[in-house]
Amino acid sequence: MVNTNRVKRILDKLSGMDLDQLLICDPTAIFYLTGKWIFPGERFLALILKKDSKPVFIMSKLFEFAEDIGAEKVYFDDTDDIIPIVANHIDERKHLGVDKNLAAKFLLPMMEARIACGFLNASVSVDMTRSVKDEIEQEKMRQASLVNDKAMEQFKTLVRDDITELEVAEQMLGIYKSFGASGYSFEPIVAFGANAADPHHMPDNTALKEGDTVLFDVGCVLDDYCSDMTRTFFYKTEPSGEARDVYELVKRANQEAEDMLKPGIPLCEVDKKARDIISEAGYGPNFTHRLGHFIGVETHEFGDVSALNKNLTEVGNTFSIEPGVYVPGGIGVRIEDLVLITENGREVLNHYSKEIEVIG
Amino acid sequence: MVNTNRVKRILDKLSGMDLDQLLICDPTAIFYLTGKWIFPGERFLALILKKDSKPVFIMSKLFEFAEDIGAEKVYFDDTDDIIPIVANHIDERKHLGVDKNLAAKFLLPMMEARIACGFLNASVSVDMTRSVKDEIEQEKMRQASLVNDKAMEQFKTLVRDDITELEVAEQMLGIYKSFGASGYSFEPIVAFGANAADPHHMPDNTALKEGDTVLFDVGCVLDDYCSDMTRTFFYKTEPSGEARDVYELVKRANQEAEDMLKPGIPLCEVDKKARDIISEAGYGPNFTHRLGHFIGVETHEFGDVSALNKNLTEVGNTFSIEPGVYVPGGIGVRIEDLVLITENGREVLNHYSKEIEVIG
Repeated sequence: MVNTNRVKRILDKLSGMDLDQLLICDPTAIFYLTGKWIFPGERFLALILKKDSKPVFIMSKLFEFAEDIGAEKVYFDDTDDIIPIVANHIDERKHLGVDKNLAAKFLLPMMEARIACGFLNASVSVDMTRSVKDEIEQEKMRQASLVNDKAMEQFKTLVRDDITELEVAEQMLGIYKSFGASGYSFEPIVAFGANAADPHHMPDNTALKEGDTVLFDVGCVLDDYCSDMTRTFFYKTEPSGEARDVYELVKRANQEAEDMLKPGIPLCEVDKKARDIISEAGYGPNFTHRLGHFIGVETHEFGDVSALNKNLTEVGNTFSIEPGVYVPGGIGVRIEDLVLITENGREVLNHYSKEIEVIG
Repeated sequence: MVNTNRVKRILDKLSGMDLDQLLICDPTAIFYLTGKWIFPGERFLALILKKDSKPVFIMSKLFEFAEDIGAEKVYFDDTDDIIPIVANHIDERKHLGVDKNLAAKFLLPMMEARIACGFLNASVSVDMTRSVKDEIEQEKMRQASLVNDKAMEQFKTLVRDDITELEVAEQMLGIYKSFGASGYSFEPIVAFGANAADPHHMPDNTALKEGDTVLFDVGCVLDDYCSDMTRTFFYKTEPSGEARDVYELVKRANQEAEDMLKPGIPLCEVDKKARDIISEAGYGPNFTHRLGHFIGVETHEFGDVSALNKNLTEVGNTFSIEPGVYVPGGIGVRIEDLVLITENGREVLNHYSKEIEVIG
């Protein structure tokens, strides 16, 4: 069913942009608003939102469905010209907000046919709405991260001498599925030893040996919502020296950034908190990425925790806090949780311990 | 390296459209022209082709690389405005051909900044060029289909009483990889019994039993090029009655459509040949899809074998010939090969037998 509350929140934001008609084509945004997943491939797909009238859902006949979802359904087939079909539902005397990803093959003929008097990228109205999770979504985010916590307990038992990163990674999907997840939210990162010092390392044939760090950056999709967590373990030997110091440093950056969270904080200040802690210890150049990203139906949604984002945290934001220190050829540690901004502060959605843990 | 011959073929087609500058953003088309795979996610990526000058390759610093590939490399970072960077390489007094999938978030500000005097979807110049495979590509298509033939020999040995479609499907990737493939070209279709009568069936927990049909519609990626083949087997029992008749009918439609292929034939006539054979036997309504699709770096490329496509076959076209008959709740048979149009006729890229075969 069309989620009328989410539609209303988008239309309110559109009003603030002096727009009252919006054409959405992103399948994820359409799922968010209708509960329907449709992947049109190269074909046209749109949900048109208008002030004071029912949404219009335009799709290929291939995706026809019977139930009433509270939108006017309009079907086309592959021999139809979709431009007049769309025009039929757009007020040509007004501006049209369009999806940031609307393809040129559709936008250019709409402009040529003058189906509206102007065209604006208005996706920010959808993106800002999606960045504030409602209660249904908050609960789904919570459950997806609980599965991620339980899966992490299993993943750490997979290690043994000489097992490769790929051999560990290949067992993860089955574990997620055993907890009811539908799949990965992204391809898992499994990194042993010096590979952990590459933040984008993909699992390869590196074999595990005593003394290695073991980094798991993993997430699943449960009931259409994503989880994402990183833990860094030590295989068979307690870390000492720089490895221990870096671990404790990253843990403190993670913890202090999470502790400061409440509504109304500039996201750049959160990034700065973690970055300053790491920089003061001399590892600033080794923290090579932003502190976090927003997450929900997609692993990477609009919004991030970076020096560039001056937006304020709002109740219902869900994002990652994932400081890391990467010493090329040496120690690599990242510790990541998902958090939810609440009325009174924050709820950390991951519960797996962040203390130093020796496994194997 | 930039493939100068492919660039020249595109620029020649552009000239015919009165264009001499083109902005390509599709990662697959960029790979086709440069040999570089870059997946920019939400970031901008473009290869600009211009008459009489070197291609310009604009990408995020994240994707920086050292070697000279015969293009001018231009990097930006996440704080840069990409519009003036692009404008710098476009002649504002001329029209600009753009990629059919260029996103509104980039196209609208380019139009507002008037980086060109007009904007046209000019992807057809790239698509038509890609639809004619050069010799390097023809050999890669041949090798990918040879692997598919060998894999089919293995797939048919996986069946046993009560094995499920999913249990068979899960073993396919390993078999492809053992032959050197990098992955699937699409998720394999494994359909037992009445499931074969659904052309888009996805493998589920259906268990195999004596007398079932066993349909495999499968393909892999080898050296960046795709294969795609379908065979329909019979489990433990020779087919009789309608099952045998339908099998022989589909085989004849496949064979006669392939036999007629040579340069200069309207693709719609090829579809008609197979469709007429099936219709004359009374199964017209049970052949519910087009006869074939073009294929190369992608499993579905521009171009198809359907009633709507009046284009003529050309030397170097590679496409599927895949007639099927689907009797809901009853027999389902599809037989698919890839073919290459040659000077003298056609080369069928799959060699696996199309005769009735009982397995298990």
